[in-house]
Amino acid sequence: MEKQLLDIISNSLTDSSYLGDDCAVVNIAGEDYLFCLDNFIENTHFSSEYFQAADIGWKALAVNISDIAAMSGQPLYALVGLSLNKEMIDKEVWVKQFYEGMQACADKFGSVKIIGGDISSQEGFTSISVALVGKAQKALLRKLSQKQDYKVCVTGKFGNSKSFLMNPKTDNESDRSYHLRPEPRLDEAQGLNDGALMDASDGLAAALFTLAQENKAHIKIDSSLIPKDAHISLNQALYGGEDYELVGLFKNCPEDFIEIGSLSFGSDKQGVVFDEALSKELEVDKEFQHF
Amino acid sequence: MEKQLLDIISNSLTDSSYLGDDCAVVNIAGEDYLFCLDNFIENTHFSSEYFQAADIGWKALAVNISDIAAMSGQPLYALVGLSLNKEMIDKEVWVKQFYEGMQACADKFGSVKIIGGDISSQEGFTSISVALVGKAQKALLRKLSQKQDYKVCVTGKFGNSKSFLMNPKTDNESDRSYHLRPEPRLDEAQGLNDGALMDASDGLAAALFTLAQENKAHIKIDSSLIPKDAHISLNQALYGGEDYELVGLFKNCPEDFIEIGSLSFGSDKQGVVFDEALSKELEVDKEFQHF
Repeated sequence: MEKQLLDIISNSLTDSSYLGDDCAVVNIAGEDYLFCLDNFIENTHFSSEYFQAADIGWKALAVNISDIAAMSGQPLYALVGLSLNKEMIDKEVWVKQFYEGMQACADKFGSVKIIGGDISSQEGFTSISVALVGKAQKALLRKLSQKQDYKVCVTGKFGNSKSFLMNPKTDNESDRSYHLRPEPRLDEAQGLNDGALMDASDGLAAALFTLAQENKAHIKIDSSLIPKDAHISLNQALYGGEDYELVGLFKNCPEDFIEIGSLSFGSDKQGVVFDEALSKELEVDKEFQHF
Repeated sequence: MEKQLLDIISNSLTDSSYLGDDCAVVNIAGEDYLFCLDNFIENTHFSSEYFQAADIGWKALAVNISDIAAMSGQPLYALVGLSLNKEMIDKEVWVKQFYEGMQACADKFGSVKIIGGDISSQEGFTSISVALVGKAQKALLRKLSQKQDYKVCVTGKFGNSKSFLMNPKTDNESDRSYHLRPEPRLDEAQGLNDGALMDASDGLAAALFTLAQENKAHIKIDSSLIPKDAHISLNQALYGGEDYELVGLFKNCPEDFIEIGSLSFGSDKQGVVFDEALSKELEVDKEFQHF
């Protein structure tokens, strides 16, 4: 559904050349500026049953910072569109905690400045959109500029966010923080300038498929190498989604990245992701979707 | 309510110096870049009873372009956060028409490039946030840099948008286009570089109060000079809201602007707007609010 709508959007625009990566890249005065925007909608992206207002503020910004990290950039300025549930009791307290949570995330990751936005109200639930501007020495795209073999490299670990969603009353701190207070891999992404990079916000498998498809190449992974906690299933790690980790293609995996596979050209299996541990292709239709 | 929440937001941020004007101003490589974001929410800002999808796309962008015009800037890049009503029938057609309407507005006003955004879904109604980046030779703020007498100058005409809302079945083309397809005063705002400027999106009276209050000055107008159509009441022209016209303070009113009054310092009536035609002060609490 979402991909179909993205095609419709591309076709409705005079110039769709900026679409398709984690952020749009615009050259200003010789530098790559990065522009991204993410929706963060109650009952679609978060539930107030387990998100506090401060968590919502944190995560609404963190998911955007992850997009900037995914292009090896530094976040600079954020704009916040907040439309509050009309029926919310104690709006003042909620708004204060929401912005304190967002400011804490802004301070921790790149000293982002929150420079403006809009506030309104609506019926039944709360909607947020955050736009973020960043800067990169040279933006790292999903598409490689050279056709040669690359290693598939990932940061952190996978599946905790899904594990939290399956048991929101858990006291596993890693599950809680991965879902409620994700920490974008901003430092880990700095200084990378050759290869391809994206975040795994839609799940690790989805990121691997995107990299294979965009590059018309074949990816092989060894799923036993995917970093995950002992209580996380392979299914959660591959398809869970909302893991704000980085997935990249590099000649050698950079510091803080773990090698889980390789990408090659020239195979007739373009766009396919094969798992050598289980001797089978990953399933594309299990992709996580926020739609 | 809205002003109270804006104070809470300012107090929750480490640096609130960017807030308070139509857009945030950021200096990049010696030029003023303008960053703004507006929500456009179904049943708060628009009704699908009389807005077509293409009108919604047009207006969601137009209200942001008006913010850029209000700082004498040129719009450059737009990001679109769209969260579609889950129950919408024929999403594909709606999205196509929405983006075609937005592209038409982008083409007409400043050749804005739509460079990205996010699409998701939600329950019951559709929410949109548009972030817009622009550039100004020198951004024109609401606050004057010199304490001297200024003329109060306005573009276009006032009250048609409210007149439409009071009778959405009207066939008055001016009422219809002012509400459904507003035309931001982008050309009229170019090249202005001395004075103060804002748009009248919250109503003409609200804009006059803002200019009087921000400058700690006294404004006198002659309400009989306010440009309006014959069928528009003075009340609609002053308090109707959603007039995407410009209100400025200049030594002499620029081309395309009409003089309706003057601003002076040194009076003990700081922040007051006095109407000489009716010999009384305007009422501050009748201000239009989208909250």
